[in-house]
Amino acid sequence: MGSTARKVSLTGIKPTGEPHLGNYVGAILPALDLADSYESMYFIADYHALTTVRDPALMRHYTRSVAATWLAAGLDPDRTTFYRQSDIPEIFELSWVLSCMSAKGLMNRAHAYKAARDRNREAGREDLDAGVNMGLFNYPVLMAVDILIVEADVVPVGRDQLQHVEYAADIAGSFNSIYGDRYKLKIPKPVVPEEGTAHTLPGTDGRKMSKSYGNTIPLFAPEAALKKVIRRITTDSVPVEAPKEPESSSVFTLLERFGDPAVVAETRARLLAGGMGWGEVKAQLTEALNERFAPMRDRYETLMASGSELDDLLAHGADKARKQTRPVLERVRDAIGIS
Amino acid sequence: MGSTARKVSLTGIKPTGEPHLGNYVGAILPALDLADSYESMYFIADYHALTTVRDPALMRHYTRSVAATWLAAGLDPDRTTFYRQSDIPEIFELSWVLSCMSAKGLMNRAHAYKAARDRNREAGREDLDAGVNMGLFNYPVLMAVDILIVEADVVPVGRDQLQHVEYAADIAGSFNSIYGDRYKLKIPKPVVPEEGTAHTLPGTDGRKMSKSYGNTIPLFAPEAALKKVIRRITTDSVPVEAPKEPESSSVFTLLERFGDPAVVAETRARLLAGGMGWGEVKAQLTEALNERFAPMRDRYETLMASGSELDDLLAHGADKARKQTRPVLERVRDAIGIS
Repeated sequence: MGSTARKVSLTGIKPTGEPHLGNYVGAILPALDLADSYESMYFIADYHALTTVRDPALMRHYTRSVAATWLAAGLDPDRTTFYRQSDIPEIFELSWVLSCMSAKGLMNRAHAYKAARDRNREAGREDLDAGVNMGLFNYPVLMAVDILIVEADVVPVGRDQLQHVEYAADIAGSFNSIYGDRYKLKIPKPVVPEEGTAHTLPGTDGRKMSKSYGNTIPLFAPEAALKKVIRRITTDSVPVEAPKEPESSSVFTLLERFGDPAVVAETRARLLAGGMGWGEVKAQLTEALNERFAPMRDRYETLMASGSELDDLLAHGADKARKQTRPVLERVRDAIGIS
Repeated sequence: MGSTARKVSLTGIKPTGEPHLGNYVGAILPALDLADSYESMYFIADYHALTTVRDPALMRHYTRSVAATWLAAGLDPDRTTFYRQSDIPEIFELSWVLSCMSAKGLMNRAHAYKAARDRNREAGREDLDAGVNMGLFNYPVLMAVDILIVEADVVPVGRDQLQHVEYAADIAGSFNSIYGDRYKLKIPKPVVPEEGTAHTLPGTDGRKMSKSYGNTIPLFAPEAALKKVIRRITTDSVPVEAPKEPESSSVFTLLERFGDPAVVAETRARLLAGGMGWGEVKAQLTEALNERFAPMRDRYETLMASGSELDDLLAHGADKARKQTRPVLERVRDAIGIS
């Protein structure tokens, strides 16, 4: 469980799609590594997803799926705290409290809101707030509360999410300046991971693997489906017997990442020498991915089955998280005179 | 407890000052009358007050004071449901849900927000959102939730608060249009009381009694303080022996409202005939108010004492209210796919 002196890290996970290999390498693995250095907390931001996901079946599926994915990928629910945002009522009460201490001007300048206005402007709409709901506008306050209510010390974020942590620090500062003699919210710090190839993967077309490019390889596809996706990976049309540049196709780059090092070395040599076709490398990649992810996929499918232990694990995580969130809300209530 | 078929009325009470006679006649009495026709619910909107009250001791005092006032004035906590907003966590979670279904444009047009912008404009400020916090901006959503979460049928409001009920109906409509096949929020109706003299009182200067005119008579002042305030009531300077127009001073109007009918009739005759001074009428009014409100004041003071049953009564009210709010939130969660 870690010593209480360890710093707390918080990772938010938005449940809005099926997990792919790029998520695994770029988000899941680095986040799971945090548990070595921090008292690490992970939450599924299902109520954030409500600003866009309006299909209840999809909402339920995405939430369960993202929970099962992270658990299957190695998240240890005993060593860490893993919970659903919607299981923590304290978050929503504190949201109201801190909205009273959040300048509206701050929200006017939030990235997601400004992007929505820009889209309206580009579409020639007169009302720049057209289609904007208050969930989107309030989003940064809820984000701040997610962070402040668990007294997170550090929040690992991508460069494009830095603003969320800055806002959390700003809003906590406003609270502290009014009520700081009675209770102080902890000011969080962002941690921006170094950008490097370690956390990115090429997709089937050679560009960075990303849902928005439609070039992803699903994390838990059954073998047949996996084969089909891998067969689509772009390669050059050099004949089998000719020498090939291994890095010219993401087939090899991906094999390098997930294959047995001996196999990778031999394949590289054979490609450079000529006489090896891309089809064979694709078969190697399929086998490597299947080997690596089959046990994870089994675990994922067991968790996704109805009546699995998934709900119990999330309930257990919520209990653990609320040991943290309840006292923070109590102290805030006491500080503002509502108790 | 009333039959379950009765319609539900909801009255919100903002804890932001000491109660006066005008509140009693204009707000408290008419609201208490609702219990004859409705399954009536009353809540202390302490979290609304947080948008302006930043002193924790004052927040605590106002909340207790307003609760004690209404109970002393005759609110029956067994026959009705009387609770503090801050004791109902479901309100804040539903607030997030419904903010995702509330158009930002609706909030842009809310009276309180527009008034704040007007003040900035008049003060020549370039940033019209200067000093506006997100509590003020979100206020109409929280108001809507207060109403929708208890499935109120009717909400008695002044003409200037009609917008709140309209917004609640509008927001409920948005929710219902998306999730209505799974669950429908009840659409509330405003009830605007007829404006008439029955619900207004003249203040010490003859104008309508109102905190903003500084002409109020406190509801629970000790006798000595009461005497002092009544002595200040404006009268004409007609000599004692001259005939007087009874309605020329609010002393008589107030006596007419609170005095014994026999005394009132006799006083009216004596004023018209001449030979009676205003000082004597003031003494009659002091006695009448003291007689009428002394038992209430005692009850108020008993409730305000620390360790009184006030906290238990409010806790009991919260339990009752949550029997209503919990199932509504559960049904909403189920409808949106968060459960």
